[in-house]
Amino acid sequence: MHIDVIPYASAIRDDLVYNRSVVVIDVLRASSVMVTAFNNGARAFIPVETVEKAKELAAGLDKADILLAGERDTRKIEGFHLGNSPFEYTAEKVSGKKIILTTSNGTKALHKIKDAREVLIGSFLNAGAVARALHGKKNIALVCSGTNNTFSMDDGMCAAMITDLLTKNSNAVLSDFTLTLLKAYRTGKENLRTLLNGCYHLNLLIKNGFEKDVNYCLQTGKYSIVPRFEAGAVVLK
Amino acid sequence: MHIDVIPYASAIRDDLVYNRSVVVIDVLRASSVMVTAFNNGARAFIPVETVEKAKELAAGLDKADILLAGERDTRKIEGFHLGNSPFEYTAEKVSGKKIILTTSNGTKALHKIKDAREVLIGSFLNAGAVARALHGKKNIALVCSGTNNTFSMDDGMCAAMITDLLTKNSNAVLSDFTLTLLKAYRTGKENLRTLLNGCYHLNLLIKNGFEKDVNYCLQTGKYSIVPRFEAGAVVLK
Repeated sequence: MHIDVIPYASAIRDDLVYNRSVVVIDVLRASSVMVTAFNNGARAFIPVETVEKAKELAAGLDKADILLAGERDTRKIEGFHLGNSPFEYTAEKVSGKKIILTTSNGTKALHKIKDAREVLIGSFLNAGAVARALHGKKNIALVCSGTNNTFSMDDGMCAAMITDLLTKNSNAVLSDFTLTLLKAYRTGKENLRTLLNGCYHLNLLIKNGFEKDVNYCLQTGKYSIVPRFEAGAVVLK
Repeated sequence: MHIDVIPYASAIRDDLVYNRSVVVIDVLRASSVMVTAFNNGARAFIPVETVEKAKELAAGLDKADILLAGERDTRKIEGFHLGNSPFEYTAEKVSGKKIILTTSNGTKALHKIKDAREVLIGSFLNAGAVARALHGKKNIALVCSGTNNTFSMDDGMCAAMITDLLTKNSNAVLSDFTLTLLKAYRTGKENLRTLLNGCYHLNLLIKNGFEKDVNYCLQTGKYSIVPRFEAGAVVLK
């Protein structure tokens, strides 16, 4: 088993994901939102890169079926049904719905991945289930979505947690970056909130009033579902 | 003081180095070679990106003054005076010489840096001197050259050592990547060889017969010189 970690969305290259089992991680908050929404009965997410594309796509679909969701600069987009807080994605709102989602980082990462063997959605909330789904896979690439084309430690520590779980019972070959993240993770894995204390994006969210979201997204093993990105949509199979 | 680390040469972007104090790190082995050669009396390094450019440049200069140096796939280039092993750069060979250098990663990194405030050459050998030279600077970018456009842990741990030294007596703002490297570094800073045990490039060098080079390059604080890249050449000032 080979495990590599890609540090941020724009660092994704075709050769780094080709024919691999890929996990897209955007802890704060797109992948945590998706995992939560599927747990609450959402039918699919359609990730799009721009607000304009989200509106265009919605215009061509049955309004009863569809929700528009996303953020820019951590805030809900005007006129959209949902922002990027997992607490908005209740069963009442999302059950049975297709959700068109555009976020600053996570949805961009999904669009950059070509010719992967499979694409899974990972977060702290479902990290254990992701590790189980990857069991026995030969080539794994964990994609940290990051923040504005730089590495974000929350995503990196989630990649390290998945690596930690995967390497418990097997001899994996880790890339230098994976190994470095694992060493950092193991200095404080028993308390993620403390480990991530100096994290830029986490502190920006807290400053903008989203501390409840942060604490929610740092819970581990809450859900055992693994959404997959296939043919342009994220679904549960 | 803000400190950021760039994970590998092709991740250098203009906005990440503009107006900053930049350190280019290629522990194994280009920056260790340059530091060693200056210690032994070399006059300048002219980094070039390709073997062809190195030969063209040499053809136009006084042969008595010039040495051609570099590697591809860790090996010396045919017809060149010097490879990329620091042990070749003795005072007998390099004193008073201008050295045209082309390596797989380190010289590429130098060529990608535009409009920095200053560009220093860093390695474990001179990490303390680099930290002293950066004292009081506001915006610092530590560039890990990496290996074939991926992160290399040896460069990352050298960036972390410089950060560790810089933050001893000051409150620096660290990027998420810098903070992550620092946490990993502090798990084993007292024994770099053990810390870097799983490092891909280090093990490739050992496999190719360069263990002596590796052990040499992992020595810390051996030299107190800081070469600078200015107007296309690396020099001591």
